[in-house]
Amino acid sequence: MSDRVYNFSAGPSMLPLEVLERAGKEITNYQGSGMSVMEMSHRSKVFQKIFDDTKANFIKLFHVPENYKVLFLQGGASSQFSMVPLNLIGKTGKADYAVTGNFSNIACKEAKKYGEINLAASSADKNHTYIPAQADLKLDPQASYFYYCANNTIYGTEWQYIPDTGDVPIVCDMSSDFLSRVVDVSRYGIIFGGAQKNLAPAGLTIAIVREDLAGNELPYTPLMMNYKTMIDKDSMYNTPPCWCIYMLGLVLEWLESKGGVEGMEQIKHAKAKLLYDVLDESKLFTCAAEVGSRSDMNVTFRSASQELDAKFVAEATAAGFVNLKGHRNVGGMRASIYNAMPTEGVEKLADFIRAFDRAN
Amino acid sequence: MSDRVYNFSAGPSMLPLEVLERAGKEITNYQGSGMSVMEMSHRSKVFQKIFDDTKANFIKLFHVPENYKVLFLQGGASSQFSMVPLNLIGKTGKADYAVTGNFSNIACKEAKKYGEINLAASSADKNHTYIPAQADLKLDPQASYFYYCANNTIYGTEWQYIPDTGDVPIVCDMSSDFLSRVVDVSRYGIIFGGAQKNLAPAGLTIAIVREDLAGNELPYTPLMMNYKTMIDKDSMYNTPPCWCIYMLGLVLEWLESKGGVEGMEQIKHAKAKLLYDVLDESKLFTCAAEVGSRSDMNVTFRSASQELDAKFVAEATAAGFVNLKGHRNVGGMRASIYNAMPTEGVEKLADFIRAFDRAN
Repeated sequence: MSDRVYNFSAGPSMLPLEVLERAGKEITNYQGSGMSVMEMSHRSKVFQKIFDDTKANFIKLFHVPENYKVLFLQGGASSQFSMVPLNLIGKTGKADYAVTGNFSNIACKEAKKYGEINLAASSADKNHTYIPAQADLKLDPQASYFYYCANNTIYGTEWQYIPDTGDVPIVCDMSSDFLSRVVDVSRYGIIFGGAQKNLAPAGLTIAIVREDLAGNELPYTPLMMNYKTMIDKDSMYNTPPCWCIYMLGLVLEWLESKGGVEGMEQIKHAKAKLLYDVLDESKLFTCAAEVGSRSDMNVTFRSASQELDAKFVAEATAAGFVNLKGHRNVGGMRASIYNAMPTEGVEKLADFIRAFDRAN
Repeated sequence: MSDRVYNFSAGPSMLPLEVLERAGKEITNYQGSGMSVMEMSHRSKVFQKIFDDTKANFIKLFHVPENYKVLFLQGGASSQFSMVPLNLIGKTGKADYAVTGNFSNIACKEAKKYGEINLAASSADKNHTYIPAQADLKLDPQASYFYYCANNTIYGTEWQYIPDTGDVPIVCDMSSDFLSRVVDVSRYGIIFGGAQKNLAPAGLTIAIVREDLAGNELPYTPLMMNYKTMIDKDSMYNTPPCWCIYMLGLVLEWLESKGGVEGMEQIKHAKAKLLYDVLDESKLFTCAAEVGSRSDMNVTFRSASQELDAKFVAEATAAGFVNLKGHRNVGGMRASIYNAMPTEGVEKLADFIRAFDRAN
């Protein structure tokens, strides 16, 4: 790593060093094409191959069934907050939302523009420190879909189960734990996520859409927010974010070399356990999230004093562990340990926490 | 250039080699930050500086007045086709569109979802080989705005004047001639463009919005398609396309070193003249666009036979002049010579055309 830092940013965040090095090596001339990937026509054969290979590898690694389409979009998860109701809510005019953090809350508010929204669950009563249990979900069988966010980046909680919603399709925002664990895609209607945490640079949004759900958009759905159009044009109605797609391709190759999503799932469990164990044993720190709801991606913790938190963050930064300050909604610290954060980085942070705990 | 080609792609297209080389040099560690720009939190000081400097330089180079806001968005010009009416048409429910090519035609169709559209002009009668004159514009004084596309990439035509629309604000798609010529921004309500032709890699859309026009969105306007929201959040409601913004910053530094937009305007005139002169003198080739409407960005031309066109494209490709095949709507050839295409590349292509003309 030499002059590089351990970057615990909540996103955008670390990319594998070997991926960055390879991108740097071919940045002026991609594989003898005489041009950068950033200069290629998206309609050219050489870019089409990058696109096709990346999509095929994503489908393979994430085990996407045949009746789903993988879309490479723009606008971030926040655009999906509108795109989902614009395309799905027309069926019954109603939808269920589980609000377990900041982003599901925004998604829920946005959906109210387009239909009648039932708050199926909320963890706001305890500042989103937990994930509601299946038994506590108030489901409407008339809902066009049920919506939740799999991992709450800010609060450090993560759904440990897939809700049972009967025949109601599930829509899930996986922005912050995408491809960190094996997922039974067939249990979902739509899965989407911004790429900038686990998968690629900011500017790419991936949506996995069960094909039969597309084609029911509301009449005022913008051209670029129509799943059917994007399916029909294989994500190339207009110029896609080519560089981000290329970078995703490189990240997926790296991920495959590490054992695929199955390999990531084992590594991420082990990485998170390193931190939670040292935090549970510490005298200074407590974790923000309840035990059964803890995220393997974002570890939120704090001491009893804001001054001590600030001292921790400052000393950690000086030691090369950066972006550990927690979100203002939660305070304290947050260590985001996505796929590209090496185990070594987490081990060193665990050692640092242990030493800080002893010294203070 | 050594192993690089002259890339005449209509977009994405060439970027300055020195920009790519610099990006490559700092791809694993940006200026001692210990991380790539692709890995930076968009809320970090180091990225905020990149963002602020890039925006300030854009404002300076393009002479953007103080009552305009520059937005860095996603989704391409095609998203603006919806965003414009969603934010502006509410005023009177009506808008004027001039259709002079493929993209203004799509924009016009899209706007019909949101209001009553008056076709103020169309060049479809002659397959978009010309730009209508001011006297031929059928303007509706009740229009919320007048819309046109400054340069028609496919047809190789370019507006040589800014329409006079009285008090009706002008909205202009400048995707394919952005920052190639000096523009009196104060004549416009909104100027927008995808970055992937003249400015940066695909995935960034720039919008220049006269501030008083924002805040009148239709009630079902998606969160991310609200100019007011994006103005209030300085384009960072959510994670922006950070890498593309960084690349834009590098391109703008390069542009400044070449004399800014004023410098580009002189170079681009000279470059286009090189090609139009040799084509006008040739025995084989004719230009697709009428003389007074010719684009300085996309030079469209053809011979009398499709076989000869194909031979030209094949021989040019073999000689290192790539992506010269014309769009299927026009046929023949198209040389796109955006800002980053060096004069040398155009000179060599002119020589090649002259030699081909003699030999065939």
